[in-house]
Amino acid sequence: MRVLMDVVDGAEIMRVSGPYRAAIGRVGTMDAQDVYASVLTVAERAKLLDPGLNDAHALYHATHDALVGILRDPAGLGPTFRTIALVYAILRGPRKLELQGERDWIAVAMFGSIGVPRPAWEHDAVGLGIYNL
Amino acid sequence: MRVLMDVVDGAEIMRVSGPYRAAIGRVGTMDAQDVYASVLTVAERAKLLDPGLNDAHALYHATHDALVGILRDPAGLGPTFRTIALVYAILRGPRKLELQGERDWIAVAMFGSIGVPRPAWEHDAVGLGIYNL
Amino acid sequence: MRVLMDVVDGAEIMRVSGPYRAAIGRVGTMDAQDVYASVLTVAERAKLLDPGLNDAHALYHATHDALVGILRDPAGLGPTFRTIALVYAILRGPRKLELQGERDWIAVAMFGSIGVPRPAWEHDAVGLGIYNL
Amino acid sequence: MRVLMDVVDGAEIMRVSGPYRAAIGRVGTMDAQDVYASVLTVAERAKLLDPGLNDAHALYHATHDALVGILRDPAGLGPTFRTIALVYAILRGPRKLELQGERDWIAVAMFGSIGVPRPAWEHDAVGLGIYNL
Amino acid sequence: MRVLMDVVDGAEIMRVSGPYRAAIGRVGTMDAQDVYASVLTVAERAKLLDPGLNDAHALYHATHDALVGILRDPAGLGPTFRTIALVYAILRGPRKLELQGERDWIAVAMFGSIGVPRPAWEHDAVGLGIYNL
Amino acid sequence: MRVLMDVVDGAEIMRVSGPYRAAIGRVGTMDAQDVYASVLTVAERAKLLDPGLNDAHALYHATHDALVGILRDPAGLGPTFRTIALVYAILRGPRKLELQGERDWIAVAMFGSIGVPRPAWEHDAVGLGIYNL
Repeated sequence: MRVLMDVVDGAEIMRVSGPYRAAIGRVGTMDAQDVYASVLTVAERAKLLDPGLNDAHALYHATHDALVGILRDPAGLGPTFRTIALVYAILRGPRKLELQGERDWIAVAMFGSIGVPRPAWEHDAVGLGIYNL
Repeated sequence: MRVLMDVVDGAEIMRVSGPYRAAIGRVGTMDAQDVYASVLTVAERAKLLDPGLNDAHALYHATHDALVGILRDPAGLGPTFRTIALVYAILRGPRKLELQGERDWIAVAMFGSIGVPRPAWEHDAVGLGIYNL
Repeated sequence: MRVLMDVVDGAEIMRVSGPYRAAIGRVGTMDAQDVYASVLTVAERAKLLDPGLNDAHALYHATHDALVGILRDPAGLGPTFRTIALVYAILRGPRKLELQGERDWIAVAMFGSIGVPRPAWEHDAVGLGIYNL
Repeated sequence: MRVLMDVVDGAEIMRVSGPYRAAIGRVGTMDAQDVYASVLTVAERAKLLDPGLNDAHALYHATHDALVGILRDPAGLGPTFRTIALVYAILRGPRKLELQGERDWIAVAMFGSIGVPRPAWEHDAVGLGIYNL
Repeated sequence: MRVLMDVVDGAEIMRVSGPYRAAIGRVGTMDAQDVYASVLTVAERAKLLDPGLNDAHALYHATHDALVGILRDPAGLGPTFRTIALVYAILRGPRKLELQGERDWIAVAMFGSIGVPRPAWEHDAVGLGIYNL
Repeated sequence: MRVLMDVVDGAEIMRVSGPYRAAIGRVGTMDAQDVYASVLTVAERAKLLDPGLNDAHALYHATHDALVGILRDPAGLGPTFRTIALVYAILRGPRKLELQGERDWIAVAMFGSIGVPRPAWEHDAVGLGIYNL
């Protein structure tokens, strides 16, 4: 699989080869709740989720796990006096290309900055969550 | 000990045999704080707590432990974009009926649903906390 | 759905009505690892999991969430000087009977005792984990 | 209440005024389990616990909370490649001297060093846990 | 090093001997965010931090670790229906007086009370966090 | 800054431009302790740490934070019946190239797989930790 992130005419484009579908989103907030809502909305608009709760439930937990890597502490953002600015990608497809007979998986990868809400008082953070569909 | 939950004339009744006292409550919220306040209020109305802080302190921690089983993540409800609807029971009495010479214990058992705040996007959850009086 | 747990000729039987499949297991240990291994083995023997990693991955996380309710602390069993004796049930089927078009879910429910390894120094604990297949 | 820690003829003495009883212990380990066992043993030898599980259960959770302050991470000692050397005090008595009608409380206070197991690669740590009897 | 806390003409004074610099602050709140903001402000007023983010970043994590000892649960204050009243000290200087060639360290020590927001329903709590500059 | 990872004559090479120093390591284990020890050893061999505990302390916490992203649960590896295979990079240098007057920072980035110890029963994981020197 090849994933290419690009900007074409001001729009963010993610080109994914093979049996994968993807979407990109951005969120900046001091309330961790906004991250879950943003990822869910972007995934639905990109038609990455089948009807029913199964896929959305897997996406929720993938988002949660990715956010653990960003926060590295379970107490959230506001209560720990921190703000984040994230770009994230959602990817749906096979766990490994050569695997036959497995249903798809869904992954959320996040990259951005986290820090006390003062100009330039932040450092980078990453997170990745993967769950079975 | 026998615990029978029943509805009589529209009121929730918990009949408990032997040296036990019990109460039932319900709470639905996106703020975990409401759960602690609801349990405390119901326990006081049912006269399950002796004066002083000892019993209330034990009830607080029993509530907290039960809530851990419901949330399965320490970050609470709102920050994780989830809502709960719970029914809970509070039970005070001996740890085991055959034990002599032990003070009472207090238990909080919770059952309900948890999920992203969309219609029918939830699944069941349970929790149980037990502390010494 | 009706779930009846019974003992017939010394064997534990779980009778489940409708589109559900179930299994029962027991585990007693001071090493939390044994719980994951026990649940996985019982689920495989009962043929609750389709081939591939998807279902086993969901079962792993359902087991983990159920164990959170039992432990109410992430540090495990041995490091916190505790031992557990659990009976657990694994259930596979629809999230709600009336839902059409959703894949199955898998649930792990645990009940037992936890405490410092001394005779009768324990109290009850419960846990429930549910994940999408 | 006055608490004086002193050494008399090579033995550690804790003199406590008023309605309090106390004990002192020491433990050095890379396995957090040893801390629970050490505190329990010292409390029993000093006759701080009444028969039955109630007092021991409260002491367990006070020890756990004190250890949270020492570890500042739930993953324990060995798994995080750290060793501790602690002195701790256990104190039983009224929550506040002027309070009437409350049962005793039990407190565990810990002070010591924590760090990767290399000579002098450590810094100080403290912890305090208090539970109702 | 000798640390003497005193009140002179109504002002809190912390006298520290040798190569150490110190400050004292107080904070009472149901929102954990206020603790981080209070400690940062006091440290800046006392000129304990060099320019740039390095020292402030170390102070943030020392504050976080001290708060772990106070809260003994990652879910914060408001979500767990608790309020705190704390006095804290910030100390900057060598990890050990006899160490040569090490940069300074920064420590945050907290003492106070925590409990459900009712009069006198609280008990003591302590916390200590230490990070490298 | 440009970071290029390459293989030359069978050896892993990390070429870093500007005021940065870097090292690469690999570790596979079911005991999280091994990760801390591996990262520390590789950093010392690559001469990324100044004498004294300050830099090593920062590296420890950067490793811990990166591992949080990998594990997404504080209970470690063995206790959760999981094994990891990781490649990691350690980078020392300015937080941002344009910043003047700040001391260096140290970052640990991890990538690899995590899963129950069965062939091919794993998925990817990432983690990043950054601390001030």
